[in-house]
Amino acid sequence: MKILEYGDVVTIYIDPKRIYTIRITENKILGTDKGYIKHDDLAGKKYGEYIYTSQNVRAYLLKPLLIDYLQTIKRATQIIYPKDSSLIIYLSSINPSSKVLEAGVGSGFLTISIANFMSKRGKIIGFDIREEHLETARYNLEKAGLIDRVQLILGDIRDSSIVQEQAFDAVFYDLPDPWNALETAYHALKPSMPIVVYVPTVNQVEKTVVSMRKSSKFIDIRVYEVLLREYLVEEGATRPKSFMIGHTGYIIFARKIV
Amino acid sequence: MKILEYGDVVTIYIDPKRIYTIRITENKILGTDKGYIKHDDLAGKKYGEYIYTSQNVRAYLLKPLLIDYLQTIKRATQIIYPKDSSLIIYLSSINPSSKVLEAGVGSGFLTISIANFMSKRGKIIGFDIREEHLETARYNLEKAGLIDRVQLILGDIRDSSIVQEQAFDAVFYDLPDPWNALETAYHALKPSMPIVVYVPTVNQVEKTVVSMRKSSKFIDIRVYEVLLREYLVEEGATRPKSFMIGHTGYIIFARKIV
Amino acid sequence: MKILEYGDVVTIYIDPKRIYTIRITENKILGTDKGYIKHDDLAGKKYGEYIYTSQNVRAYLLKPLLIDYLQTIKRATQIIYPKDSSLIIYLSSINPSSKVLEAGVGSGFLTISIANFMSKRGKIIGFDIREEHLETARYNLEKAGLIDRVQLILGDIRDSSIVQEQAFDAVFYDLPDPWNALETAYHALKPSMPIVVYVPTVNQVEKTVVSMRKSSKFIDIRVYEVLLREYLVEEGATRPKSFMIGHTGYIIFARKIV
Amino acid sequence: MKILEYGDVVTIYIDPKRIYTIRITENKILGTDKGYIKHDDLAGKKYGEYIYTSQNVRAYLLKPLLIDYLQTIKRATQIIYPKDSSLIIYLSSINPSSKVLEAGVGSGFLTISIANFMSKRGKIIGFDIREEHLETARYNLEKAGLIDRVQLILGDIRDSSIVQEQAFDAVFYDLPDPWNALETAYHALKPSMPIVVYVPTVNQVEKTVVSMRKSSKFIDIRVYEVLLREYLVEEGATRPKSFMIGHTGYIIFARKIV
Repeated sequence: MKILEYGDVVTIYIDPKRIYTIRITENKILGTDKGYIKHDDLAGKKYGEYIYTSQNVRAYLLKPLLIDYLQTIKRATQIIYPKDSSLIIYLSSINPSSKVLEAGVGSGFLTISIANFMSKRGKIIGFDIREEHLETARYNLEKAGLIDRVQLILGDIRDSSIVQEQAFDAVFYDLPDPWNALETAYHALKPSMPIVVYVPTVNQVEKTVVSMRKSSKFIDIRVYEVLLREYLVEEGATRPKSFMIGHTGYIIFARKIV
Repeated sequence: MKILEYGDVVTIYIDPKRIYTIRITENKILGTDKGYIKHDDLAGKKYGEYIYTSQNVRAYLLKPLLIDYLQTIKRATQIIYPKDSSLIIYLSSINPSSKVLEAGVGSGFLTISIANFMSKRGKIIGFDIREEHLETARYNLEKAGLIDRVQLILGDIRDSSIVQEQAFDAVFYDLPDPWNALETAYHALKPSMPIVVYVPTVNQVEKTVVSMRKSSKFIDIRVYEVLLREYLVEEGATRPKSFMIGHTGYIIFARKIV
Repeated sequence: MKILEYGDVVTIYIDPKRIYTIRITENKILGTDKGYIKHDDLAGKKYGEYIYTSQNVRAYLLKPLLIDYLQTIKRATQIIYPKDSSLIIYLSSINPSSKVLEAGVGSGFLTISIANFMSKRGKIIGFDIREEHLETARYNLEKAGLIDRVQLILGDIRDSSIVQEQAFDAVFYDLPDPWNALETAYHALKPSMPIVVYVPTVNQVEKTVVSMRKSSKFIDIRVYEVLLREYLVEEGATRPKSFMIGHTGYIIFARKIV
Repeated sequence: MKILEYGDVVTIYIDPKRIYTIRITENKILGTDKGYIKHDDLAGKKYGEYIYTSQNVRAYLLKPLLIDYLQTIKRATQIIYPKDSSLIIYLSSINPSSKVLEAGVGSGFLTISIANFMSKRGKIIGFDIREEHLETARYNLEKAGLIDRVQLILGDIRDSSIVQEQAFDAVFYDLPDPWNALETAYHALKPSMPIVVYVPTVNQVEKTVVSMRKSSKFIDIRVYEVLLREYLVEEGATRPKSFMIGHTGYIIFARKIV
């Protein structure tokens, strides 16, 4: 079983509100309101074990999962939540060796999610128009250990000449005006393969879908919205949580036809 | 670009209510209320192209995606819908070479979904207590071309001795009484790795979560429910669909501790 | 306690899928797939009692409630569901002697709901541009015994001169283009009192709200959507129903300022 | 048109986050982070007009509606929200002269809502086991000007002898253990009339419904949950609000049979 070393990434779980994902670094300290933890004390431990904080509170050491990266991701932009990225990836039907196009990459959280489901034979080419977004995304992908299957390019996807490769298995868009980048997606995609678009407003949904229809280049257009409820379970007193996310965005799916 | 041949699986898209996923077979005919299509006419075509039905209606030939398999799957049991299987898989954080345990396999739709995100280096060991479920699952996995990464075993997962391998990266349960199979999951899982359980009633949620807590073998227990809305988009008249799935099941997530 | 007579309206409850609201009429027969019931057998009975159908199935005699009228209403148009009309009425804050304006009346189901919460001192003036809608509404209101507090007028509410009274306590609109009738509402309403608008599409919401804001005649504008889940309760197997209404319409609330 | 005087209750609307419902009192001052307002400046004004705060911000004077009382209610307990109280009242089908039983009254917000839809000929008899709840409820009902149709009684509704009147048109319960008070409801209700119960957990739903069924004293049992989404409307950028209430409680409806 894996012995934790300096440089490894570990998720520290104290309680549902105190979950931290860190890279073990010599002499560093993780401070929490339940006491601090010396990184040096983590080296030599194993996943699933626990240590105590300086306030004598148990902290479990866990192998980071996708949902942990979300909570500690460095954010340059609004990120796409697991409730949405899970369906986006599912709809795309990518497999470990798919080649996909993504724009705009933003903080790279969807990129991490896609990359997680790929092997090194897979490839994500990710575009963004802002260098600082790409830097943040690169930082996050490196921390997650997934940068090897991602190529980040500075550029405006609305200009279809910017994408020099072809025959992509899927296209993912998180853009303010996806209707202006449909031509690019069309050229990039293999025939019959899907584009999945994420937008926050109903107006963007309408404009994107109407543009897709008018172009006659896409069929099987579908629009989804995911509502996620979390439950509080107590024996004899089970109920949904009092607050929930009311809205993040809409997901548009379509397939290229020839 | 791929030329379709006999034996290939293709999704025929006529309109949103007429989507068929078939294996191209000599002399066979696909009958629809918009006319029939001869399988023989599909061989030699490419994905993304269209042909005409006998009633002169366009039918597009598409590469099958996960969502297409759902619509044509042979059903022995209630299946897990994409809105749920997408989050289940996301929460599990599996990667292409993960080794996972699944029970009960049922018609194999979750199995297909998991297998899709794996390479041949990944492995799913799937249990069910009924031989006819395993046969249905095998049929469906073969049609989807994913049987090579799946091992199906007849047996009752509540008996932990039935699982002869260890060090699984994730466990998936779709059982009527998951609380009776937690011991098996615990032995099977690598430390810190996740179990994801799917159950239709609130009572099963409560029993499972309470059992997990009492066992002191799992932490970070979360319970989710996914509501999916589909939208009808018309220029100037966009709105959600009139009907939606009101309920399928609840998703329980937890992680093994040592 | 009330003894049922010819002319009384009674709700016959056999099971959740067999609920009928009828006016007791001599020699008439209510046919159901669980047997028939002679109206003549109802006279002389009391609410809360049961009789047997010709197939020996129990049928309970109930005093009709608002939710019963919905199920037997004669429909000329799409009606407003209880989940929506309840909130519409609540937001309006009408009391038993309020004077309210409604347009378009349609089949009169919202009218019945409003009238139910009024005494004879209250007054609803209801407009519709189609005579057949008003006839249907009149029929339904008479059956519910609430016509005495309602005045139905044929006419187009977008022409503000059509409303000859003033000082309304609330205005209710179920119109395709409510933004064209805001002037009428403004003239009709007492200062500070509410208008509540019901529309099926997001685009109508946007147009109405933007018009309200531009007019500078309304404040405290709010937009709501109600999702209603129904539950199936079995001891040890409680869960939401599998299907639900995914969408009916949006509710817009605002208050007139001077 | 009504001229505001000392003693009148008025809702001050500055913006969606600054809505205050006050009784105009000599020499009093309403302090807000957008400046203060002297009560003395309100006397002599009319509903629908505006004044300026000390920071020169417009503040509109509105006639209080039900939704305004909620925001300024004195709270002794968790209150029932408009999304729920609207449906509860609708399901009950009460009219202006109904006689209804309510327990537990708590802070009296449901009581205010019911009383609003009644004339002085209607009557609410409200029980609570804690004197301080009844005092809070009385304070809130007086402020809303609705105390004249409400009788508040200290006592435990689970003891059916405590209710000395009979022939109620509806019963409303907001109790931790409504199943222990079904006998009281049964004795209080007119035959065929409804009981509406509000409970926060699924377990309470199950226990209540199972008790109702076992008693054979209630039919047409229904269980509802209301989800309310609020929308943010901007021209070209309309979407639901980011946060929403995820859960308050469940509503159970049933009718007494003989």
